Amino acid sequence: MADGDIDRLIQLLARLPGLGPRSARRGALYLLQRRESLLQPLAAALTRAAESIVACSTCGNLDSSDPCAICRDPGRDRSTICVVEEVGDLWALERSGAFKGRYHVLGGTLSALDGRGPEQLNLGRLLERAGEAGTEEIILALSATVEGQTTAHYLVERLAGLPVEVTGLGRGVPVGGSLDFLDDGTLAAALKARRPAG
Amino acid sequence: MADGDIDRLIQLLARLPGLGPRSARRGALYLLQRRESLLQPLAAALTRAAESIVACSTCGNLDSSDPCAICRDPGRDRSTICVVEEVGDLWALERSGAFKGRYHVLGGTLSALDGRGPEQLNLGRLLERAGEAGTEEIILALSATVEGQTTAHYLVERLAGLPVEVTGLGRGVPVGGSLDFLDDGTLAAALKARRPAG
Repeated sequence: MADGDIDRLIQLLARLPGLGPRSARRGALYLLQRRESLLQPLAAALTRAAESIVACSTCGNLDSSDPCAICRDPGRDRSTICVVEEVGDLWALERSGAFKGRYHVLGGTLSALDGRGPEQLNLGRLLERAGEAGTEEIILALSATVEGQTTAHYLVERLAGLPVEVTGLGRGVPVGGSLDFLDDGTLAAALKARRPAG
Repeated sequence: MADGDIDRLIQLLARLPGLGPRSARRGALYLLQRRESLLQPLAAALTRAAESIVACSTCGNLDSSDPCAICRDPGRDRSTICVVEEVGDLWALERSGAFKGRYHVLGGTLSALDGRGPEQLNLGRLLERAGEAGTEEIILALSATVEGQTTAHYLVERLAGLPVEVTGLGRGVPVGGSLDFLDDGTLAAALKARRPAG
Protein backbone atom coordinates (compact mmCIF):
# COMPACT_ATOMS: atom_id res chain seq x y z
CA MET A 1 0.00 0.00 0.00
CA ALA A 2 2.07 2.87 -1.27
CA ASP A 3 1.10 6.33 -0.11
CA GLY A 4 -1.20 8.46 -2.36
CA ASP A 5 1.62 10.81 -3.38
CA ILE A 6 3.88 7.86 -4.18
CA ASP A 7 1.08 6.12 -6.10
CA ARG A 8 0.58 9.18 -8.27
CA LEU A 9 4.32 9.40 -8.96
CA ILE A 10 4.41 5.71 -9.95
CA GLN A 11 1.39 6.09 -12.24
CA LEU A 12 2.97 9.04 -14.07
CA LEU A 13 6.37 7.33 -14.39
CA ALA A 14 4.65 4.22 -15.79
CA ARG A 15 3.40 6.31 -18.73
CA LEU A 16 6.96 6.92 -19.97
CA PRO A 17 7.91 4.76 -22.97
CA GLY A 18 9.89 1.71 -21.90
CA LEU A 19 8.68 1.80 -18.29
CA GLY A 20 5.91 -0.50 -17.09
CA PRO A 21 4.23 -0.61 -13.66
CA ARG A 22 7.07 -2.67 -12.21
CA SER A 23 9.94 -0.50 -13.40
CA ALA A 24 7.95 2.62 -12.50
CA ARG A 25 7.72 1.37 -8.90
CA ARG A 26 11.43 0.64 -8.93
CA GLY A 27 12.13 4.09 -10.40
CA ALA A 28 9.95 5.86 -7.82
CA LEU A 29 11.72 4.07 -4.97
CA TYR A 30 15.11 4.83 -6.52
CA LEU A 31 14.16 8.52 -6.72
CA LEU A 32 12.83 8.64 -3.15
CA GLN A 33 16.05 7.10 -1.88
CA ARG A 34 18.11 9.74 -3.73
CA ARG A 35 16.16 12.83 -2.81
CA GLU A 36 18.90 15.42 -3.06
CA SER A 37 21.04 13.88 -5.76
CA LEU A 38 18.27 12.89 -8.19
CA LEU A 39 14.66 13.50 -7.13
CA GLN A 40 14.95 17.24 -6.54
CA PRO A 41 17.20 17.89 -9.60
CA LEU A 42 14.82 15.89 -11.83
CA ALA A 43 11.79 17.79 -10.49
CA ALA A 44 13.61 21.07 -11.20
CA ALA A 45 14.72 19.97 -14.69
CA LEU A 46 11.16 18.95 -15.61
CA THR A 47 9.71 22.19 -14.27
CA ARG A 48 12.32 24.17 -16.19
CA ALA A 49 11.72 22.19 -19.39
CA ALA A 50 7.96 22.74 -19.08
CA GLU A 51 8.55 26.48 -18.76
CA SER A 52 11.36 27.06 -21.23
CA ILE A 53 11.21 24.56 -24.09
CA VAL A 54 9.24 25.69 -27.14
CA ALA A 55 8.91 24.48 -30.72
CA CYS A 56 10.95 26.62 -33.14
CA SER A 57 8.53 28.57 -35.33
CA THR A 58 10.90 28.16 -38.28
CA CYS A 59 11.84 24.49 -38.25
CA GLY A 60 9.80 22.81 -35.48
CA ASN A 61 12.85 21.80 -33.39
CA LEU A 62 12.45 21.87 -29.59
CA ASP A 63 14.67 24.43 -27.90
CA SER A 64 14.72 26.98 -25.10
CA SER A 65 14.70 29.80 -27.66
CA ASP A 66 12.73 30.59 -30.81
CA PRO A 67 14.25 30.55 -33.41
CA CYS A 68 16.17 27.52 -32.15
CA ALA A 69 19.95 27.37 -31.73
CA ILE A 70 20.36 25.61 -35.09
CA CYS A 71 18.26 28.12 -37.04
CA ARG A 72 20.12 30.99 -35.32
CA ASP A 73 23.61 29.53 -35.93
CA PRO A 74 25.29 31.64 -38.65
CA GLY A 75 27.79 28.81 -39.21
CA ARG A 76 25.16 26.47 -40.63
CA ASP A 77 24.66 26.14 -44.36
CA ARG A 78 21.45 27.98 -45.25
CA SER A 79 21.18 26.45 -48.71
CA THR A 80 20.18 22.97 -47.53
CA ILE A 81 17.13 21.93 -45.50
CA CYS A 82 16.90 18.39 -44.16
CA VAL A 83 13.28 17.29 -43.65
CA VAL A 84 12.75 14.82 -40.76
CA GLU A 85 9.66 13.26 -39.23
CA GLU A 86 10.34 13.95 -35.55
CA VAL A 87 12.70 15.90 -33.30
CA GLY A 88 14.27 12.56 -32.31
CA ASP A 89 15.42 12.12 -35.92
CA LEU A 90 16.94 15.61 -35.86
CA TRP A 91 18.82 14.65 -32.67
CA ALA A 92 20.09 11.46 -34.32
CA LEU A 93 21.41 13.38 -37.34
CA GLU A 94 23.04 15.97 -35.06
CA ARG A 95 24.77 13.21 -33.09
CA SER A 96 26.18 11.83 -36.35
CA GLY A 97 27.72 15.25 -37.07
CA ALA A 98 27.25 14.50 -40.77
CA PHE A 99 24.90 17.36 -41.65
CA LYS A 100 25.75 21.05 -41.45
CA GLY A 101 22.61 22.59 -42.95
CA ARG A 102 19.29 23.32 -41.28
CA TYR A 103 16.29 21.15 -40.53
CA HIS A 104 12.57 21.01 -40.89
CA VAL A 105 10.55 18.82 -38.52
CA LEU A 106 7.32 17.58 -40.12
CA GLY A 107 5.84 16.28 -36.88
CA GLY A 108 4.97 12.87 -38.31
CA THR A 109 4.10 11.18 -41.56
CA LEU A 110 1.00 10.95 -43.70
CA SER A 111 -1.03 7.93 -42.70
CA ALA A 112 -4.35 6.97 -44.18
CA LEU A 113 -4.79 4.30 -41.50
CA ASP A 114 -4.25 6.71 -38.59
CA GLY A 115 -6.14 9.51 -40.33
CA ARG A 116 -3.15 11.85 -40.57
CA GLY A 117 -3.42 14.07 -43.63
CA PRO A 118 -1.20 16.91 -44.92
CA GLU A 119 -2.97 19.44 -42.66
CA GLN A 120 -1.61 17.62 -39.56
CA LEU A 121 1.99 18.14 -40.72
CA ASN A 122 4.18 21.24 -40.44
CA LEU A 123 4.01 21.69 -44.23
CA GLY A 124 3.11 25.31 -44.97
CA ARG A 125 6.26 26.60 -43.33
CA LEU A 126 8.36 24.07 -45.30
CA LEU A 127 6.93 25.28 -48.61
CA GLU A 128 7.64 28.89 -47.57
CA ARG A 129 11.22 28.03 -46.62
CA ALA A 130 11.76 26.03 -49.81
CA GLY A 131 10.71 29.08 -51.79
CA GLU A 132 13.05 31.49 -49.98
CA ALA A 133 16.04 32.88 -51.87
CA GLY A 134 19.17 30.90 -51.01
CA THR A 135 17.46 27.55 -50.50
CA GLU A 136 19.00 25.13 -53.00
CA GLU A 137 18.36 21.61 -51.77
CA ILE A 138 15.70 19.81 -49.72
CA ILE A 139 16.88 16.46 -48.35
CA LEU A 140 13.98 14.16 -47.45
CA ALA A 141 15.41 12.18 -44.50
CA LEU A 142 12.26 10.16 -43.88
CA SER A 143 11.89 6.59 -42.65
CA ALA A 144 12.19 3.79 -45.18
CA THR A 145 8.69 2.66 -44.23
CA VAL A 146 5.53 2.72 -46.31
CA GLU A 147 4.33 5.82 -44.45
CA GLY A 148 7.69 7.58 -44.65
CA GLN A 149 7.94 6.93 -48.37
CA THR A 150 4.32 7.93 -49.00
CA THR A 151 5.11 11.21 -47.27
CA ALA A 152 8.32 11.64 -49.31
CA HIS A 153 6.39 11.06 -52.51
CA TYR A 154 3.78 13.63 -51.50
CA LEU A 155 6.50 16.17 -50.63
CA VAL A 156 8.21 15.67 -53.99
CA GLU A 157 4.92 16.57 -55.67
CA ARG A 158 4.30 19.60 -53.47
CA LEU A 159 7.86 20.88 -53.96
CA ALA A 160 7.80 20.41 -57.76
CA GLY A 161 7.92 23.74 -59.51
CA LEU A 162 10.02 25.40 -56.81
CA PRO A 163 13.64 26.13 -57.81
CA VAL A 164 15.09 23.58 -55.39
CA GLU A 165 16.63 20.15 -55.81
CA VAL A 166 14.80 17.47 -53.81
CA THR A 167 16.92 14.46 -52.71
CA GLY A 168 16.48 11.41 -50.48
CA LEU A 169 18.86 9.41 -48.29
CA GLY A 170 21.03 6.70 -49.87
CA ARG A 171 19.87 3.09 -49.53
CA GLY A 172 22.08 0.12 -48.88
CA VAL A 173 23.99 -1.97 -46.40
CA PRO A 174 24.30 -0.19 -43.01
CA VAL A 175 27.86 0.36 -41.77
CA GLY A 176 28.83 -2.74 -39.76
CA GLY A 177 25.93 -4.65 -41.30
CA SER A 178 26.44 -8.33 -42.14
CA LEU A 179 24.69 -9.45 -45.36
CA ASP A 180 23.47 -12.57 -43.62
CA PHE A 181 21.28 -10.56 -41.25
CA LEU A 182 19.85 -8.04 -43.71
CA ASP A 183 16.29 -8.22 -44.93
CA ASP A 184 15.54 -8.86 -48.60
CA GLY A 185 14.35 -5.31 -49.23
CA THR A 186 17.62 -3.79 -48.04
CA LEU A 187 19.65 -6.29 -50.06
CA ALA A 188 17.66 -5.51 -53.19
CA ALA A 189 18.07 -1.76 -52.61
CA ALA A 190 21.80 -2.17 -51.99
CA LEU A 191 22.21 -4.13 -55.25
CA LYS A 192 20.30 -1.50 -57.16
CA ALA A 193 22.44 1.28 -55.63
CA ARG A 194 25.72 -0.52 -56.43
CA ARG A 195 28.73 1.68 -57.24
CA PRO A 196 32.29 1.27 -58.49
CA ALA A 197 34.35 -0.66 -55.91
CA GLY A 198 37.63 0.46 -54.35
CA MET B 1 22.43 18.96 -30.62
CA ALA B 2 19.77 18.99 -27.97
CA ASP B 3 19.35 22.19 -26.01
CA GLY B 4 21.12 22.52 -22.62
CA ASP B 5 17.89 22.21 -20.64
CA ILE B 6 16.87 19.15 -22.66
CA ASP B 7 20.35 17.63 -22.25
CA ARG B 8 20.13 18.00 -18.50
CA LEU B 9 16.69 16.38 -18.46
CA ILE B 10 17.97 13.47 -20.56
CA GLN B 11 21.00 12.98 -18.29
CA LEU B 12 18.83 12.84 -15.17
CA LEU B 13 16.28 10.49 -16.76
CA ALA B 14 19.14 8.20 -17.87
CA ARG B 15 20.05 7.66 -14.20
CA LEU B 16 16.74 5.93 -13.49
CA PRO B 17 17.04 2.13 -13.26
CA GLY B 18 16.03 0.48 -16.53
CA LEU B 19 16.55 3.60 -18.66
CA GLY B 20 19.71 4.04 -20.73
CA PRO B 21 20.79 7.06 -22.79
CA ARG B 22 18.62 5.99 -25.71
CA SER B 23 15.42 5.43 -23.76
CA ALA B 24 16.09 8.60 -21.73
CA ARG B 25 16.16 10.60 -24.98
CA ARG B 26 12.96 8.93 -26.08
CA GLY B 27 11.40 9.64 -22.68
CA ALA B 28 12.43 13.31 -22.72
CA LEU B 29 10.95 13.78 -26.17
CA TYR B 30 7.78 11.96 -25.12
CA LEU B 31 7.47 14.29 -22.12
CA LEU B 32 8.12 17.44 -24.16
CA GLN B 33 5.45 16.40 -26.63
CA ARG B 34 2.93 15.92 -23.78
CA ARG B 35 3.59 19.05 -21.81
CA GLU B 36 0.22 19.48 -20.12
CA SER B 37 -0.86 15.87 -19.84
CA LEU B 38 2.42 14.42 -18.55
CA LEU B 39 5.43 16.76 -18.23
CA GLN B 40 3.83 19.28 -15.88
CA PRO B 41 1.99 16.67 -13.75
CA LEU B 42 5.19 14.63 -13.40
CA ALA B 43 7.19 17.72 -12.38
CA ALA B 44 4.51 18.53 -9.79
CA ALA B 45 4.38 14.94 -8.49
CA LEU B 46 8.18 14.84 -8.08
CA THR B 47 8.26 18.21 -6.33
CA ARG B 48 5.46 17.09 -4.03
CA ALA B 49 7.18 13.77 -3.29
CA ALA B 50 10.45 15.55 -2.51
CA GLU B 51 8.61 17.79 -0.04
CA SER B 52 6.20 15.38 1.57
CA ILE B 53 7.61 11.86 1.62
CA VAL B 54 9.56 10.91 4.76
CA ALA B 55 10.85 7.68 6.25
CA CYS B 56 8.63 6.47 9.10
CA SER B 57 10.62 6.80 12.34
CA THR B 58 9.03 3.59 13.62
CA CYS B 59 9.33 1.14 10.73
CA GLY B 60 11.34 2.89 7.97
CA ASN B 61 8.49 2.81 5.41
CA LEU B 62 8.24 5.80 3.04
CA ASP B 63 5.04 7.82 3.50
CA SER B 64 3.71 11.35 3.55
CA SER B 65 3.22 11.12 7.31
CA ASP B 66 5.30 9.92 10.27
CA PRO B 67 4.33 7.45 11.71
CA CYS B 68 3.33 5.98 8.36
CA ALA B 69 -0.21 4.94 7.40
CA ILE B 70 0.53 1.29 8.23
CA CYS B 71 1.97 2.03 11.69
CA ARG B 72 -0.99 4.35 12.43
CA ASP B 73 -3.64 1.88 11.23
CA PRO B 74 -5.47 0.54 14.32
CA GLY B 75 -6.76 -2.36 12.21
CA ARG B 76 -3.32 -3.91 11.78
CA ASP B 77 -2.15 -6.69 14.05
CA ARG B 78 0.40 -5.20 16.46
CA SER B 79 1.72 -8.57 17.62
CA THR B 80 3.59 -9.39 14.41
CA ILE B 81 6.45 -7.47 12.77
CA CYS B 82 7.59 -8.46 9.29
CA VAL B 83 11.24 -7.51 8.68
CA VAL B 84 12.08 -6.65 5.05
CA GLU B 85 15.23 -5.39 3.34
CA GLU B 86 13.76 -2.50 1.35
CA VAL B 87 10.56 -0.49 0.98
CA GLY B 88 10.03 -2.23 -2.37
CA ASP B 89 9.69 -5.55 -0.52
CA LEU B 90 7.11 -3.97 1.80
CA TRP B 91 5.15 -2.79 -1.25
CA ALA B 92 5.31 -6.31 -2.74
CA LEU B 93 3.93 -7.85 0.47
CA GLU B 94 1.20 -5.20 0.66
CA ARG B 95 0.18 -5.93 -2.92
CA SER B 96 -0.13 -9.61 -2.04
CA GLY B 97 -2.58 -8.67 0.73
CA ALA B 98 -1.29 -11.68 2.66
CA PHE B 99 0.08 -9.88 5.72
CA LYS B 100 -1.95 -7.87 8.21
CA GLY B 101 0.71 -7.04 10.80
CA ARG B 102 3.27 -4.26 10.73
CA TYR B 103 6.66 -3.97 9.06
CA HIS B 104 10.23 -3.07 9.76
CA VAL B 105 12.45 -1.92 6.87
CA LEU B 106 16.12 -2.75 7.49
CA GLY B 107 17.39 -0.60 4.62
CA GLY B 108 19.55 -3.36 3.14
CA THR B 109 21.46 -6.48 4.12
CA LEU B 110 24.76 -7.14 5.81
CA SER B 111 27.48 -7.48 3.20
CA ALA B 112 31.13 -8.04 3.94
CA LEU B 113 31.97 -7.46 0.26
CA ASP B 114 30.22 -4.08 0.09
CA GLY B 115 31.35 -3.12 3.59
CA ARG B 116 27.83 -2.94 5.04
CA GLY B 117 27.85 -3.79 8.74
CA PRO B 118 25.06 -3.83 11.37
CA GLU B 119 25.51 -0.09 12.03
CA GLN B 120 24.32 0.67 8.47
CA LEU B 121 21.00 -1.08 9.07
CA ASN B 122 17.90 0.18 10.88
CA LEU B 123 18.52 -2.29 13.71
CA GLY B 124 18.30 -0.41 17.03
CA ARG B 125 14.66 0.49 16.45
CA LEU B 126 13.87 -3.14 15.53
CA LEU B 127 15.33 -4.41 18.81
CA GLU B 128 13.31 -1.78 20.70
CA ARG B 129 10.12 -2.78 18.90
CA ALA B 130 10.81 -6.49 19.41
CA GLY B 131 11.09 -5.82 23.15
CA GLU B 132 7.83 -3.85 23.41
CA ALA B 133 4.90 -5.42 25.24
CA GLY B 134 2.50 -7.01 22.74
CA THR B 135 5.10 -8.01 20.15
CA GLU B 136 4.87 -11.79 19.77
CA GLU B 137 6.43 -12.73 16.44
CA ILE B 138 9.15 -11.36 14.16
CA ILE B 139 8.94 -12.70 10.58
CA LEU B 140 12.24 -12.38 8.74
CA ALA B 141 11.07 -11.84 5.11
CA LEU B 142 14.58 -11.49 3.68
CA SER B 143 15.89 -12.53 0.27
CA ALA B 144 16.92 -16.16 -0.22
CA THR B 145 20.41 -14.93 -1.16
CA VAL B 146 23.70 -15.37 0.71
CA GLU B 147 23.47 -11.80 1.98
CA GLY B 148 19.80 -12.05 2.93
CA GLN B 149 20.39 -15.27 4.83
CA THR B 150 23.54 -13.94 6.53
CA THR B 151 21.44 -11.02 7.71
CA ALA B 152 18.65 -13.34 8.87
CA HIS B 153 21.17 -15.42 10.83
CA TYR B 154 22.57 -12.29 12.46
CA LEU B 155 19.07 -11.06 13.39
CA VAL B 156 18.18 -14.44 14.96
CA GLU B 157 21.23 -14.06 17.22
CA ARG B 158 20.45 -10.45 18.13
CA LEU B 159 16.80 -11.26 18.86
CA ALA B 160 17.63 -14.31 21.00
CA GLY B 161 16.70 -13.71 24.61
CA LEU B 162 13.78 -11.46 23.77
CA PRO B 163 10.33 -12.97 24.43
CA VAL B 164 9.42 -13.16 20.73
CA GLU B 165 9.16 -15.99 18.24
CA VAL B 166 11.43 -15.45 15.21
CA THR B 167 10.28 -17.07 11.94
CA GLY B 168 11.33 -17.05 8.28
CA LEU B 169 9.41 -17.41 5.01
CA GLY B 170 8.55 -20.86 3.68
CA ARG B 171 10.75 -22.31 0.95
CA GLY B 172 9.56 -24.29 -2.02
CA VAL B 173 8.06 -24.32 -5.46
CA PRO B 174 6.61 -20.89 -6.38
CA VAL B 175 2.93 -20.84 -7.31
CA GLY B 176 2.71 -21.45 -11.06
CA GLY B 177 6.28 -22.74 -11.08
CA SER B 178 7.15 -25.66 -13.34
CA LEU B 179 9.67 -28.09 -11.83
CA ASP B 180 11.55 -28.21 -15.10
CA PHE B 181 12.53 -24.55 -14.81
CA LEU B 182 13.43 -24.44 -11.12
CA ASP B 183 17.04 -24.26 -9.96
CA ASP B 184 18.53 -27.12 -7.94
CA GLY B 185 18.60 -25.11 -4.71
CA THR B 186 14.85 -24.45 -4.83
CA LEU B 187 14.12 -28.09 -5.69
CA ALA B 188 16.24 -29.29 -2.78
CA ALA B 189 14.54 -26.80 -0.41
CA ALA B 190 11.10 -27.86 -1.67
CA LEU B 191 11.90 -31.54 -1.07
CA LYS B 192 13.15 -30.78 2.40
CA ALA B 193 10.00 -28.75 3.18
CA ARG B 194 7.66 -31.51 1.87
CA ARG B 195 4.29 -31.87 3.59
CA PRO B 196 1.32 -34.22 3.60
CA ALA B 197 -0.41 -34.10 0.20
CA GLY B 198 -4.08 -33.30 -0.44
